[in-house]
Amino acid sequence: MTKLTAWGVTGIPEVKPGDQLGDIIVDACRAAPNGPLRDRDVLVVTQKVVSKAEGRLVTIDANDPLSHKQLVEDEAVRVVRRRGDLIITETEHGFVCANSGVDLSNVERGQAALLPKDSDRSARRIRDIVRARLGVEVGVIVSDTFGRAWRKGLTDVAIGVAGIAAVVDLRGTPDALGRVMQVTEVAVADELASAAELVMGKSTGIPVAVVRGAEAAWFRESSVGELIRPPQEDLFR
Amino acid sequence: MTKLTAWGVTGIPEVKPGDQLGDIIVDACRAAPNGPLRDRDVLVVTQKVVSKAEGRLVTIDANDPLSHKQLVEDEAVRVVRRRGDLIITETEHGFVCANSGVDLSNVERGQAALLPKDSDRSARRIRDIVRARLGVEVGVIVSDTFGRAWRKGLTDVAIGVAGIAAVVDLRGTPDALGRVMQVTEVAVADELASAAELVMGKSTGIPVAVVRGAEAAWFRESSVGELIRPPQEDLFR
Repeated sequence: MTKLTAWGVTGIPEVKPGDQLGDIIVDACRAAPNGPLRDRDVLVVTQKVVSKAEGRLVTIDANDPLSHKQLVEDEAVRVVRRRGDLIITETEHGFVCANSGVDLSNVERGQAALLPKDSDRSARRIRDIVRARLGVEVGVIVSDTFGRAWRKGLTDVAIGVAGIAAVVDLRGTPDALGRVMQVTEVAVADELASAAELVMGKSTGIPVAVVRGAEAAWFRESSVGELIRPPQEDLFR
Repeated sequence: MTKLTAWGVTGIPEVKPGDQLGDIIVDACRAAPNGPLRDRDVLVVTQKVVSKAEGRLVTIDANDPLSHKQLVEDEAVRVVRRRGDLIITETEHGFVCANSGVDLSNVERGQAALLPKDSDRSARRIRDIVRARLGVEVGVIVSDTFGRAWRKGLTDVAIGVAGIAAVVDLRGTPDALGRVMQVTEVAVADELASAAELVMGKSTGIPVAVVRGAEAAWFRESSVGELIRPPQEDLFR
C-alpha cells in the first residue's frame, strides 16, 4: 500500500547569498526527528530560499509602489492580463503567474526576490550535494506559490525539478475496469509541492519539506519544462 | 512539528447507485492497516464513486463520439474555449474544466459519469455518517481531476467539502520576518486533494484516501464556493 508522509525540516537558519543550500539542508535533516534522508525521499525547497542563496535579491524603494511594479514588468516577457494592481505575466521560464514571481514577503523591507534563473539547475545542485555527502538518491523540487485562472486560493507548484518526474503519463494504462484510459498526465511534481506546502505553512518560516513514499517509478531525470504548456497549445494566454 | 500522512483506503467494493458511501468507507477503514479513523482525519473521496453512489450515470452510445460531446454541452452553462476535441466549459457549479467534468474512465463502457449535483452535500453526508457511527469528527473532501490553463498535467482538486476549510486566509498574518503578508489565501482543500491523489493513483482503483495531520485550525464549516472565482473577478473566462 502506498503511504505518503510529509514533514517540514526545522532548524534551517536564515539563508544568505552565497550559501550552499544542499549543505544546509543535509545538516538540518541530520538533526531532524524523522532521521536522515533516504533513497527516494523528495526534498521540496521553496523558491524564496533558493533565490536568497543564489543572490536573486534586488533593492527596491519600499515607499514607492512603482518600484515594485517596474521590476515586475522588467521580469516579464509578456503581460498576459492586467487589472488594477494585479498583473499576470509570462516569465522568461515560461511560467504564467502574478507579478512575474517577484516576491516581497519573507525578504527584508526594501528588497524583492526574483525567481531563480534556472530552478532545474538549482534542484540538481541540491540533489548532487545530497548524493555526494550522504550517498542517497533523492528527488528535489523547487516550489513556488501560484494562483490559478478560475479557482481562488493559491497552491504550491513545482518551478524546478531534479531526479523526480514533473509529469507522469498514464496514457494507455488500463483503468480499474480494464478500459484503456484517455489522456491522463498527472502533474506529480505539482502535487508533491502542494503536499509539502501543507506542512510548511506560509508564516512559520519552514522553507524545506521532505516527502517520503513517492512511487519508485517517478524517480527519473526530468525538467520543469514538462509542466509548461507551450503557447501554441495554450487557449488562455 | 506538523507531519502529514496520507494513505489509500483499500477494500472498497465496486460502488453502485444507491450505495451509502459513508457506511462503505467506515467499514473499509475499520479493516485498514492504519487503524480506525480519528478526529481531524480528512477523508478524500473521488468524484467517480460519489457520482456512482448518487446514480449520476447516464447511458451514451459508446460507438458514437457525438453522444459524449452532446452530453458535455448539456452539462455546461457556458463553453469557455473549444479547440478540436477539447472543450473547456463552465458547469452549473461554477467549475471551469474540460468536458463539463463528464467522465468515461472507470465506468462501464456505454456509460458516462456526471459530476454530483452538490458535492458539498455529498461530503456532508459522508461526514455525518462517520460522526454517527464512530463519534469521530473528520473533514471530507470530494475530489476531481482537473487541468490548468497554463500548466500541463492534471492535479486533483476539491469539488466539495465538509468540516474542513476550502481556503485558509493568511492575510494579515506576519511572515517569518515580521512583515504583514500581502494576499495569501491558501487553497488547502485543493492541496489536500492533490496529496491524496498521490496515494490513490488513477489506475489502481482506490477511490478514497485518508490524510492525517491537517492543522486543527482548518477544521470548520466550509463550502467549495470559497474556491470558485466569481466570473466578474475572472480574467480568463
